[in-house]
Amino acid sequence: MAAAPARKTSRTPSRAKAAPRAAGPEGVGMIGLGIMGSAMSANLVKAGFQVFGHDPVAAARTRLKRAGGTPCAGVAEVVKNCGRIVLSLPSEAALDAVCAELVAAGGRGRVLAETSTLPETAKLRARDTLAAAGMTLLDCPLSGTGAQALTRDLAVYASGDTAAIGEFAPVFDGFARVRYDVGAFGNGIRMKLVANLLVAIHNLSTAEAILLGERSGLDAAQIVRVVADGAGGSRMFQVRGPMMVDRSWDQATMKVAIWQKDMRLIQEALQRTDTPAPLFAASMPIYNAAMALGHGEDDTAAVYAVLERMVGGPKPARKARRAS
Amino acid sequence: MAAAPARKTSRTPSRAKAAPRAAGPEGVGMIGLGIMGSAMSANLVKAGFQVFGHDPVAAARTRLKRAGGTPCAGVAEVVKNCGRIVLSLPSEAALDAVCAELVAAGGRGRVLAETSTLPETAKLRARDTLAAAGMTLLDCPLSGTGAQALTRDLAVYASGDTAAIGEFAPVFDGFARVRYDVGAFGNGIRMKLVANLLVAIHNLSTAEAILLGERSGLDAAQIVRVVADGAGGSRMFQVRGPMMVDRSWDQATMKVAIWQKDMRLIQEALQRTDTPAPLFAASMPIYNAAMALGHGEDDTAAVYAVLERMVGGPKPARKARRAS
Amino acid sequence: MAAAPARKTSRTPSRAKAAPRAAGPEGVGMIGLGIMGSAMSANLVKAGFQVFGHDPVAAARTRLKRAGGTPCAGVAEVVKNCGRIVLSLPSEAALDAVCAELVAAGGRGRVLAETSTLPETAKLRARDTLAAAGMTLLDCPLSGTGAQALTRDLAVYASGDTAAIGEFAPVFDGFARVRYDVGAFGNGIRMKLVANLLVAIHNLSTAEAILLGERSGLDAAQIVRVVADGAGGSRMFQVRGPMMVDRSWDQATMKVAIWQKDMRLIQEALQRTDTPAPLFAASMPIYNAAMALGHGEDDTAAVYAVLERMVGGPKPARKARRAS
Amino acid sequence: MAAAPARKTSRTPSRAKAAPRAAGPEGVGMIGLGIMGSAMSANLVKAGFQVFGHDPVAAARTRLKRAGGTPCAGVAEVVKNCGRIVLSLPSEAALDAVCAELVAAGGRGRVLAETSTLPETAKLRARDTLAAAGMTLLDCPLSGTGAQALTRDLAVYASGDTAAIGEFAPVFDGFARVRYDVGAFGNGIRMKLVANLLVAIHNLSTAEAILLGERSGLDAAQIVRVVADGAGGSRMFQVRGPMMVDRSWDQATMKVAIWQKDMRLIQEALQRTDTPAPLFAASMPIYNAAMALGHGEDDTAAVYAVLERMVGGPKPARKARRAS
Repeated sequence: MAAAPARKTSRTPSRAKAAPRAAGPEGVGMIGLGIMGSAMSANLVKAGFQVFGHDPVAAARTRLKRAGGTPCAGVAEVVKNCGRIVLSLPSEAALDAVCAELVAAGGRGRVLAETSTLPETAKLRARDTLAAAGMTLLDCPLSGTGAQALTRDLAVYASGDTAAIGEFAPVFDGFARVRYDVGAFGNGIRMKLVANLLVAIHNLSTAEAILLGERSGLDAAQIVRVVADGAGGSRMFQVRGPMMVDRSWDQATMKVAIWQKDMRLIQEALQRTDTPAPLFAASMPIYNAAMALGHGEDDTAAVYAVLERMVGGPKPARKARRAS
Repeated sequence: MAAAPARKTSRTPSRAKAAPRAAGPEGVGMIGLGIMGSAMSANLVKAGFQVFGHDPVAAARTRLKRAGGTPCAGVAEVVKNCGRIVLSLPSEAALDAVCAELVAAGGRGRVLAETSTLPETAKLRARDTLAAAGMTLLDCPLSGTGAQALTRDLAVYASGDTAAIGEFAPVFDGFARVRYDVGAFGNGIRMKLVANLLVAIHNLSTAEAILLGERSGLDAAQIVRVVADGAGGSRMFQVRGPMMVDRSWDQATMKVAIWQKDMRLIQEALQRTDTPAPLFAASMPIYNAAMALGHGEDDTAAVYAVLERMVGGPKPARKARRAS
Repeated sequence: MAAAPARKTSRTPSRAKAAPRAAGPEGVGMIGLGIMGSAMSANLVKAGFQVFGHDPVAAARTRLKRAGGTPCAGVAEVVKNCGRIVLSLPSEAALDAVCAELVAAGGRGRVLAETSTLPETAKLRARDTLAAAGMTLLDCPLSGTGAQALTRDLAVYASGDTAAIGEFAPVFDGFARVRYDVGAFGNGIRMKLVANLLVAIHNLSTAEAILLGERSGLDAAQIVRVVADGAGGSRMFQVRGPMMVDRSWDQATMKVAIWQKDMRLIQEALQRTDTPAPLFAASMPIYNAAMALGHGEDDTAAVYAVLERMVGGPKPARKARRAS
Repeated sequence: MAAAPARKTSRTPSRAKAAPRAAGPEGVGMIGLGIMGSAMSANLVKAGFQVFGHDPVAAARTRLKRAGGTPCAGVAEVVKNCGRIVLSLPSEAALDAVCAELVAAGGRGRVLAETSTLPETAKLRARDTLAAAGMTLLDCPLSGTGAQALTRDLAVYASGDTAAIGEFAPVFDGFARVRYDVGAFGNGIRMKLVANLLVAIHNLSTAEAILLGERSGLDAAQIVRVVADGAGGSRMFQVRGPMMVDRSWDQATMKVAIWQKDMRLIQEALQRTDTPAPLFAASMPIYNAAMALGHGEDDTAAVYAVLERMVGGPKPARKARRAS
């Protein structure tokens, strides 16, 4: 079959052609209306889809209604109205529970896109459970924050059945800037962990660089401005560098306590695939220390506070100086 | 004095105004005509400067002549013709030797910009030696490769006497895309080491990410394409990722053996400033191993070959797969 | 209550006084007759105990019979004959299964000592399950190898109910050289993980030291002999150093593949307690690489083979030399 | 020649036979009368040697006199009276200066044992300088602290000319417990760096283990007592563990600031020999942090204070507990 490798090696992300829809209700479902789920729902409404959403939290359902969607009392109501359903869930347990409800609701023929960062094993288990009941699950993690979700600035790492991804493409294009078909089911979460390994490292490398600069007598704000523009630059340096200089990690875009779950998934993937990753390993103690120092609810930029504390901070003793 | 802090905190890099020239010959000197020195010379000629260059290697002088510059038999001849002189030297020993020749040539009043990545102590020593003979040395490392030097795509981290930097600004603008005045003498090399700490880490994080992806069953080329576009992206990932996938580290843009000198300077700066840098520390063994495995003349992208060897490479056993 | 702190802070390990036995059959049970369980059983027989043992593997039961013990067809038969029962099990699943059988067998009043290295959560779950059925579980990991078990050269890290430990003391003394009462239930496995964190590090530090020595021109055997006697010495250096020099890691005393389970437990404990452990973290990639290089069934001394491979081994290029 | 390999592979350290003395004055010289030099001198006097010592510090010379030795005004006086001279010097610069004085004093035929931890290159330079003037230098670092020097509990790693080592053997036996002939000149300092790499790691692994234990609810003193006796034990754990528990790092046996010099020598040896040492690398940031936190004059056991600070110390929040 020519399509699969073509998709895998396509040089440019594609925008979907108007793919022929499989049989099933026209509505698009959203199970889980948290920060990500509600942002995606709102954008799908704007894109012209009829969105049916469910969340156990009443306030989340109300928010959906205000955004123009249709709140549903339960999973069964979503299934009844939607051929394509997005899952945006907080935990492995939530995924297990939703799968049981989907099976009970008799969703035969539905295509579902699981967009959370959850263990590969949990995703595989969900796929098998749903497949036995005639449903097709796709593994489609998102790259981007809640803020990016609001502005439709997400990337989708779609993986699983080729035809089902094609069928789902217009929905992805309704809430994401770009989508990649990364191949077999599970490749989505695998790609996400690869990206997050880099995020874990680059967040900390940003802190190390600023600390070395400051202790060498440089101005922190200047470091961030000058270095971002060169060979040492990274997306994390651009985003988290200013947060470290401003000490604004109390405004979390990714909380340390939640990030520790991602760290665990990466560490498990490394051990399972027998992969040596010396930098990622070296980053773990600093994130553990961030937790110990009470930064669990702070942004991961708080790794800078850990390093600073190792040198007697909050304020390093030596300050920027200028020779006369 | 208001000027100094203003320069240090200026939000945007400035292009020089036509600064009043100090007394001294109008020519611009270039001592050291290697890859960087010859590229800068050629761009200075194009920018309208009369360039006088010296290098002990005859072929380098011939190349300068072809580019429109004036080759000089020695340092004294450069001094005689030039008020502003750029130094582009391979080692601390070369800097010491050139300083002795400058003093012997009686270069009183000259302003010199030292652009190499050399120990802070060597630069300070050179500054003092030249100051005693009435010359002003600036510490002005460059960010960018030889290829970038050819296309005038360099950044200058200028540091030292404010007025002298102003006087030298048109010369910088003749061979660089942007220049930053980073403050007191020595801040230039300090900023360069901060940037290089990031380069050392991000080069290796790129290798770790690709390796984890490959061993998880992903396609290496796809990883580079997909991840570069997201939160895990970095300048090094963009530049070195493709080299790792193509195994093209034999085409060196930065040789491991030369990079080890930079690793040493960073390590010394960390110890001298009592700065903990766990990621940089974790990168050192891999660069040492790259040397041991015979990659001294290869590009630093060869750290990928080290990781690969740790898992039984050159070819990892598990390959990308797609479920039927 | 004075007893508990006294036990916890006692400077010297105690040998049990003849503690008053609680009611219950006089026999001592052994559930799990693998390498450790069979060695402990044999020593308990020699110490004068009547030993009733069960293992699903028939050969293991036969071996017990030859050693003078009484093989039992199931857990129920052990329960019927024994007031004190030792558990020596390979996995969390085995512990869960045995607990279910113990409850079914109605073992009210029995005291059980769980001696395996298993997750704290699994041990706590087992304790609660058994407590609900009137049994008292102790958490009592062992320090020592199968070879040490044969010669009664084990240490017991006993934790849990003080009186129950006292009751079990004569049994511990029947198969161990020394026992420590380390306090509350779970402290045993916690202490074991602390010890294993050191083992993981010292095994690798031994490899690093020998490699540096060899590459500096020293004789490997001489390094092991000279360094063991000084400030750099460790138990692992003494035990694993000669294995690395002789390249005899194919004779496993602790297999890499099994050790990875312990690495995981330590890593989880570090993350759960928010503890930074930079050296342990730095060791993980090397153990992962040992797996990738096919050393899963070799002794953990094979980390030396990983480092050697990073420098182009099996044989490092530079050899010991003596100036004329 | 059979002697050299025999010495290198001898299984047991030897005590010297009464080796035939080369021509030269009978006295034994000691240049440098600091903590180590004065302790060695006192033991040599007790062993029956006539000791001639020099140190620029007058108090050190007075101390030698009280111990029964003969203080000398300068190096020349030592040379005049001694055929065998021990060097115990604080720095590379001191070694260079003493060599110049030895040459000026005309010490032809003398044998000298350099016992300090100094760069290999400095030792080689000294050897060549002295050889040109007819003197034989041996490289003979010591393993052991000042306290051990007082009780003659030192180990000598002697390297260099075989016959000269034989001649010096009775002197070594006068101040050391054991001596090893480790081969060619320079092997002494190489072996010392191998041992110190282990010391750097095991000092920190001790801190990590105690911290994990404490944060798991264990009693720190108990950890030290229980773990020292098992597979996780090390010489450093025995020596530094109690210092960490007692927080007595203000009583320095090895100061962090001085240890940083050794860290640098090890790091240079690793880079020079292209050797990957991930654990040693991971230890460097913690020693840098110890300096930054003001522990320069404290014992290296203060790495525990660094880890503790990373978790919010001095007192970790969670304390040892015992379930009711």
